[in-house]
Amino acid sequence: MKPGNKVKRIEGVLSPVITPFGKDYSPDAERFARHCRWLLKSGCAGLAIFGTNSEANSMSVEEKLELLEALIKGGVPAGTLMPGTGHNALSDSVRMTREAVRMGCGGVLMLPPFYYKGVSDEGLFRSFAEVIERVGDERLRLYLYHIPPVSNVPITLELIEKLLSRYPGIVAGAKDSSGDWANTKAMLDRFKDRGFDVFPGSEVFLLDGLRDGGKGCITATGNVNPGPISEVFKNWRSSEADKLQAGITATRKIMQKVPMIPALKAVTAHFANDPQWRTVRPPLVELAPEQEKQVITELKAAGFSMPGL
Amino acid sequence: MKPGNKVKRIEGVLSPVITPFGKDYSPDAERFARHCRWLLKSGCAGLAIFGTNSEANSMSVEEKLELLEALIKGGVPAGTLMPGTGHNALSDSVRMTREAVRMGCGGVLMLPPFYYKGVSDEGLFRSFAEVIERVGDERLRLYLYHIPPVSNVPITLELIEKLLSRYPGIVAGAKDSSGDWANTKAMLDRFKDRGFDVFPGSEVFLLDGLRDGGKGCITATGNVNPGPISEVFKNWRSSEADKLQAGITATRKIMQKVPMIPALKAVTAHFANDPQWRTVRPPLVELAPEQEKQVITELKAAGFSMPGL
Repeated sequence: MKPGNKVKRIEGVLSPVITPFGKDYSPDAERFARHCRWLLKSGCAGLAIFGTNSEANSMSVEEKLELLEALIKGGVPAGTLMPGTGHNALSDSVRMTREAVRMGCGGVLMLPPFYYKGVSDEGLFRSFAEVIERVGDERLRLYLYHIPPVSNVPITLELIEKLLSRYPGIVAGAKDSSGDWANTKAMLDRFKDRGFDVFPGSEVFLLDGLRDGGKGCITATGNVNPGPISEVFKNWRSSEADKLQAGITATRKIMQKVPMIPALKAVTAHFANDPQWRTVRPPLVELAPEQEKQVITELKAAGFSMPGL
Repeated sequence: MKPGNKVKRIEGVLSPVITPFGKDYSPDAERFARHCRWLLKSGCAGLAIFGTNSEANSMSVEEKLELLEALIKGGVPAGTLMPGTGHNALSDSVRMTREAVRMGCGGVLMLPPFYYKGVSDEGLFRSFAEVIERVGDERLRLYLYHIPPVSNVPITLELIEKLLSRYPGIVAGAKDSSGDWANTKAMLDRFKDRGFDVFPGSEVFLLDGLRDGGKGCITATGNVNPGPISEVFKNWRSSEADKLQAGITATRKIMQKVPMIPALKAVTAHFANDPQWRTVRPPLVELAPEQEKQVITELKAAGFSMPGL
């Protein structure tokens, strides 16, 4: 597999878009497209749909493909999309990645298979390599998704080295959700000059990342705070950068006091005045009323808003 | 959901059947059915297809449904089957469980959704309850699959209590693959008299389990050593029981020296003289030649064989 030259790389702030469900837990394509359009209008450069915060693994491949198609039909430019396409089943990962490339997505963000723990780098290399070979499309831009606190299956620097050497240009970067700046820095230092774009998995590391050659961030709170986070990206060379960074870090810290995914949905429900947004699929549960009250109160006290929602 | 009376509970030794793949990693329905028939002929009371040792999570729902259908068409009695039907996606779990019940399977063995870690018992309760309600069939016999070393999402005694109280007869038991006898014993002591059948996840605990009210075991090595393991089940009240148990424990210990799933496949490949059995799907990898040589040599020295394979 050799990469083609026609795909523009996504850079900036990406939101791992939360997925709206009806009372019966069915995905709501219309609300989803509306939220995606708001995110792009509010400063997001891209949409990492079907990520951890999207409850993507709680949906079937069919449900995700329907949402993806509806989104593109609903006016969201495919080039801004970086859907999650990594599954436990090789066949699911191939199918989802193939469809994403066919529809013109700007990239795909791939979890490793995460059921078996303690698997070898060789086994993980084969997983990703099989997907790349079977999709067999020079437009593929594959971003590796390192999120050991959830997947429990790390993507090591040695694995990246092996994949990048074999598939330069196709293997396009990584989201590092380790929460460990030392790991993000090691990724940047080793791979940033080799066409490998590193996105920290939290805006807390956005400015540090940009100063070290990072390309933006892919962050949960991008769902609710896309404007201010994007301002850090746009102004990172300015003298205001540290102050802007401190502001978004403070907002993040308020959100992190309660479980993140139901919190993102509760905050969206509150500011959109749309209670349906609160629904999460099992095994997640909604915030308790007192948790929601706490986070909303603290956000308002900090001057937080979701303009244009 | 109230349980009907027409489903005969499976008791005895169940094998979590290994899945044969072609060189291109496609599931091989014919080899699969042949191995299943051999297991039943060799003493297994049931077949826990699509379990951890089956690489079930490495297959799509479609691939599994095709195998299940082929198996039943291939003459394997549906009542002996306890397929794994628990997925991360609620929609996948519902679909797979519904099909298993429709085809007359003796039970289903359900993993909890395992992507998110640290989820609440309430969230897990909702996951299982939604599947039960949506399948809505009195023939459903749901066995909970507790395998924290792999899933990292435990099924607590409190969760069992809640599910069993709400769905008695439908929630039929559990496989305990914690490897922790104290947990298996606690499960037995609390639930064995309430129509809840406990199966340790290793034959190492078979005799101890039977003496404490267990119903058998569901064990990886049931794939290669079904005869001797079944003898322990058949003779557990006899004076020979401890000696028989010591024999199967010794075989298990040889197998456990190398990674279990590729070992099961390598041993089957060796004794069936059928190299195709060695193939595992990524992210797993085959045994190294020296690992395979070690396990085969030690098994032969211990008098191990796979008669009639």
